[in-house]
Amino acid sequence: MTNKNGVEWSIRVCDGTSMVLDPKPKSEHGVMRVWDRLKGWAARSVMRAWMFLKKAWDLGVDDPRKLFHCLKVAVALTVVSLFYYMRPLYDGVGGSAIWAVMTVVVVFEYTVGGTLYKCLNRICATFLAGLLALGVHWFASHSGHQIEPYIMGISLFILASATTFSRFIPAVKARFDYGCTVFILTYSLVSVSGYRVDNLLHLAHERVSTIIIGTCLCIIISMIVFPVWAGLELHHLVPRDMDKLAKSLDCCVADYFGHDDDKESKKTLQDYKCVLNSKASEESMANFARWEPAHGHFNFCHPWKNYLKIGASSRNCAYCIETLTSFLDSKNQVPESIKSHLESACMNLSSSSSNLIRELAKSVSTMAKSVKTNIAVEDMKNAVQELQNDLKSLPNLLIQPLHDHEEKINVMPLLEVIPLVSFASLLIETASRIEENMMKAVEELAESAQFKQIEDEVKLKHNHTTNKIVANEENAIPL
Amino acid sequence: MTNKNGVEWSIRVCDGTSMVLDPKPKSEHGVMRVWDRLKGWAARSVMRAWMFLKKAWDLGVDDPRKLFHCLKVAVALTVVSLFYYMRPLYDGVGGSAIWAVMTVVVVFEYTVGGTLYKCLNRICATFLAGLLALGVHWFASHSGHQIEPYIMGISLFILASATTFSRFIPAVKARFDYGCTVFILTYSLVSVSGYRVDNLLHLAHERVSTIIIGTCLCIIISMIVFPVWAGLELHHLVPRDMDKLAKSLDCCVADYFGHDDDKESKKTLQDYKCVLNSKASEESMANFARWEPAHGHFNFCHPWKNYLKIGASSRNCAYCIETLTSFLDSKNQVPESIKSHLESACMNLSSSSSNLIRELAKSVSTMAKSVKTNIAVEDMKNAVQELQNDLKSLPNLLIQPLHDHEEKINVMPLLEVIPLVSFASLLIETASRIEENMMKAVEELAESAQFKQIEDEVKLKHNHTTNKIVANEENAIPL
Repeated sequence: MTNKNGVEWSIRVCDGTSMVLDPKPKSEHGVMRVWDRLKGWAARSVMRAWMFLKKAWDLGVDDPRKLFHCLKVAVALTVVSLFYYMRPLYDGVGGSAIWAVMTVVVVFEYTVGGTLYKCLNRICATFLAGLLALGVHWFASHSGHQIEPYIMGISLFILASATTFSRFIPAVKARFDYGCTVFILTYSLVSVSGYRVDNLLHLAHERVSTIIIGTCLCIIISMIVFPVWAGLELHHLVPRDMDKLAKSLDCCVADYFGHDDDKESKKTLQDYKCVLNSKASEESMANFARWEPAHGHFNFCHPWKNYLKIGASSRNCAYCIETLTSFLDSKNQVPESIKSHLESACMNLSSSSSNLIRELAKSVSTMAKSVKTNIAVEDMKNAVQELQNDLKSLPNLLIQPLHDHEEKINVMPLLEVIPLVSFASLLIETASRIEENMMKAVEELAESAQFKQIEDEVKLKHNHTTNKIVANEENAIPL
Repeated sequence: MTNKNGVEWSIRVCDGTSMVLDPKPKSEHGVMRVWDRLKGWAARSVMRAWMFLKKAWDLGVDDPRKLFHCLKVAVALTVVSLFYYMRPLYDGVGGSAIWAVMTVVVVFEYTVGGTLYKCLNRICATFLAGLLALGVHWFASHSGHQIEPYIMGISLFILASATTFSRFIPAVKARFDYGCTVFILTYSLVSVSGYRVDNLLHLAHERVSTIIIGTCLCIIISMIVFPVWAGLELHHLVPRDMDKLAKSLDCCVADYFGHDDDKESKKTLQDYKCVLNSKASEESMANFARWEPAHGHFNFCHPWKNYLKIGASSRNCAYCIETLTSFLDSKNQVPESIKSHLESACMNLSSSSSNLIRELAKSVSTMAKSVKTNIAVEDMKNAVQELQNDLKSLPNLLIQPLHDHEEKINVMPLLEVIPLVSFASLLIETASRIEENMMKAVEELAESAQFKQIEDEVKLKHNHTTNKIVANEENAIPL
């Protein structure tokens, strides 16, 4: 019942007269509408805020270390603000305590590596820029008060543009991006203040010392209280991604042959997608890890770059698996007889490939070489061979002589078989990528990080060789 | 000639006596070695510095806008430092001019969107945090000088941890990451200073006004002098990536059938690799573009998100092309007769697919719908059909009756043909991805950004329809 466009609703009453239905008074109606809108808006806002809070809560529950990080930042800030509240500390550094507060806010990162990167960049850049600015200021002030602003201005112009440009160079950007910002900042602050502040050396000294106080506090808190090492994160991330690949591969092949259709496996099938776009996060972690001191099993010079290579090889496999999944749409086109002919070989290959990936992942995460890897490679190679043999014998299935008419043959349309054949050959390609790229990358890491040989397995292998191939023992390749 | 391990070199002279060859005196030898090392080190250093400078030079020549950016930053810094050098300006803002300098250094980004993002975040966060800090300070100071530090400290602790936590939430991180940092910074500065500085309102006012001066200067310079719009960059990047895909696809198929082996095409073949890892840069550009005002052909609410969808579809195709290239290794295994059977269809499909990609890219970059796209789709569909027909007739080639012995047939090993068949089916898959993902994404963009229909082509089409299918005109689907 609306009264838009002046439409009138009437009802014919039983006695024949028609009665106009009077809509609610306009003003009341308008108020109601506004009220309804307000209610709707409020409900939506509450809903949104609730969803936001729920998401935030889930985030915190998922990874409590993020909560700890927040508390760590708050503690550092509160400690550094003590410089203001406590008279003896305040008398020590004075108004410059503000720099210590700023340093803590700007420098404290989630990982130890990130914090160290920013701290070292900040200290070095401040020191360098301060020294340079003092030098140029000394030179300029001896040239006369009239020329001084020109000299300072021109030097600022040149240094600012050169430093800004150097930030575009990838090598500089990766390691010293923050340092460049701080360099320009400090140089301009000191040089510009120099014109008005008398005791410039005192200013520079105070700035450097408060920054050192701030950075030390950050470094100590981030390294001692529940430290999050970028290197360790990378060390966990890379094998986790590999495991995801293995799961996806298994699910994909099982799905193709109709082995599991439950929701869980449909979800696992998508796991490889995390790997496709992992480059940026891996690179930033490796970048930060470089700044970290020895921790856990890692030396200062742990070969973090090799992890990036493994990550790249994982993505390489993920591309292949991505293409494999696109064949899932055509799985029902293929005749069942042909499918069952290749099924066991395909399943075998997928399980041995994923097994190899898992072994490699285990080797990376435990930092130990295992004989099992070599067994897994052999298994995979055999599975490839088996699949190739099955493919070889495929034509016999396609071409079946018709009964009683031996001169005529029935050729099954190749077009129907092509998706399966392509699927199989992509599986073989995936296996070869695992062997050629991923295994190589892991071996390189094993060599440069000096992975240990697992003790009991060495013994096991030793027994194995002495019992079985005593004669060959001298030629045995050390694994 | 070494004298390590005390080895002595002797020479038998013609008269029969042997003469010990005296190595150079040890001290001279050592000096020489150090000198050689120094020379080598110096040469390497010079070489490295030279390479570094050459790279930097190439970077500048490749994209002169980067050079302009550096000059813009330097100009902004020099202008803002005038506040120090010129007495009337200095009297206006006083020592707080330091905040203007800091703002310029920290806020000036390469793109207008980046600068706007940081400026708006900085202003809003400073204003909000300042207001909040003043409020809490007023409340605390009325509670007595003894309790004041505790109230301020606790509020700082709570706000710092909450803000730090909110930075982990992806939606907040994408839009307000910098704002969060500035919020904590300002709150801690104002609240902490409040304990020692008497005229806190004056401090807050000065900080806000100098920050506004700095940000305005940055915004004006970055928008007026050779502006680099993040939106425009994204608008160029997406079609450029699509063109690269098209080139790679063409090269890959041409290479498979041995059509071009020169270095240039080998290089072009690798072009698709840029697309594989473009996600991060596309996302950051789209993020910045959101902050930009209307410029060029783009409104304030230009659907930048749709560009991300096109980018995702490009990557989707790139994964397929990546897998395609891995078949290049096995191109020589396939018998020539079979290869030539599928060659023309494959070449056709690749050229029509890349043509479609190019048309779509053109449509994105010119922001206009073209009838050519629909023609290209039809071409591609026909090429797919042609390739499928050729694949259908493949078995006849594989099975050839041996001459004179009609009851016996010669089956060509399927295994040799599999790589080619897989290659062809991957080509078909690529085509279907182009049609299903990329075309859909471009159409979505065309709809939400209201792409124009190209004028002369409308006319052309109109003539076409009126001349040929007059009867059907009323049913013609508007393109």
